[in-house]
Amino acid sequence: MDTFKTHLDKFITISEEEYVSVLSFFEVVEVKKKQTLLFDGEVCKSMYFVSKGCLRKFFVNEKGVEQTTEFAVENWWITDTFAYERQIKTEFNIQSVERSSLLVIDLETQELLLKKHPVMERYFRMIYQRAYAASERRIRYLYEMSREELYVHFSTQYPWFIQRIPQYLIASFLGFTPEYLSEIRAKLRS
Amino acid sequence: MDTFKTHLDKFITISEEEYVSVLSFFEVVEVKKKQTLLFDGEVCKSMYFVSKGCLRKFFVNEKGVEQTTEFAVENWWITDTFAYERQIKTEFNIQSVERSSLLVIDLETQELLLKKHPVMERYFRMIYQRAYAASERRIRYLYEMSREELYVHFSTQYPWFIQRIPQYLIASFLGFTPEYLSEIRAKLRS
Repeated sequence: MDTFKTHLDKFITISEEEYVSVLSFFEVVEVKKKQTLLFDGEVCKSMYFVSKGCLRKFFVNEKGVEQTTEFAVENWWITDTFAYERQIKTEFNIQSVERSSLLVIDLETQELLLKKHPVMERYFRMIYQRAYAASERRIRYLYEMSREELYVHFSTQYPWFIQRIPQYLIASFLGFTPEYLSEIRAKLRS
Repeated sequence: MDTFKTHLDKFITISEEEYVSVLSFFEVVEVKKKQTLLFDGEVCKSMYFVSKGCLRKFFVNEKGVEQTTEFAVENWWITDTFAYERQIKTEFNIQSVERSSLLVIDLETQELLLKKHPVMERYFRMIYQRAYAASERRIRYLYEMSREELYVHFSTQYPWFIQRIPQYLIASFLGFTPEYLSEIRAKLRS
């Protein structure tokens, strides 16, 4: 069974025939590890669905350090939503963390898809609702927790994530240096 | 002209007749200043649309201090999305900042609305997309800017907001004490 179909089935009711048509609006893209899909300064044309693998979104801060703000693993979407819906230049980069298999759609094609398959409005509504709910909680954590507490929270809630993602990227996500992350890990082990 | 109709017209095409039916799914609620609509520990049953006025969402941190994570002025929605979609207990409070006029809907009624008027799936998809885009940018600011820079950014981008919202709530939103906010304001004026 196609993973995207299994994923859609969690949100909407869609027949095999309709699914074949829905899928035809997407481009299947295979990327190697550390391949950049979107560059800072480029118009953000597409949304990326991860069928297999992992992508990350990051910006380069004033000190020239990469700051990761988001990861997307299987069954998650990733883009710069603000730039995508306005079709303007992004200030983010999107890069593969692992060799990945993606479904890619651009705004114009997405509009055609939504016109032909209105049930996909419901799907995307639920996806954005879920994403927004996650970001509301994340904003609260950013207020509430120290960086160290965020790491502990993260490694307790998502141990598979800590296992899977290279340590220097977890550091980049939490705003640590890799050295500081090693220190925290050593402290927590002791 | 009804403000909710004017708002909907920005996202979807809807006739007067259909609008009358859509509106019938909502409850119009008038609240005074500082009235609590949702309490921490209560099941989050509703979403709130601000027709007039201002609401805020906050939690009480470990030190017993109210931390505001979100404001909603005219034409914005507010709820604890995570708790709302699961119909579980919230860990937030929602309170009016000003005397406000609201449209309120609960999850079950919203489902009936979406079933009867599928065009509202498109509307909510766009609303969540916009909200998610805003939160993506906000998360970046939380990584990138000091609290003081956030205040400067805020007051440059949204001067009307700084004018409108009581200073102790802006402090609560930025994670300052009201005294520290006064200091920053004095420093910026000098």
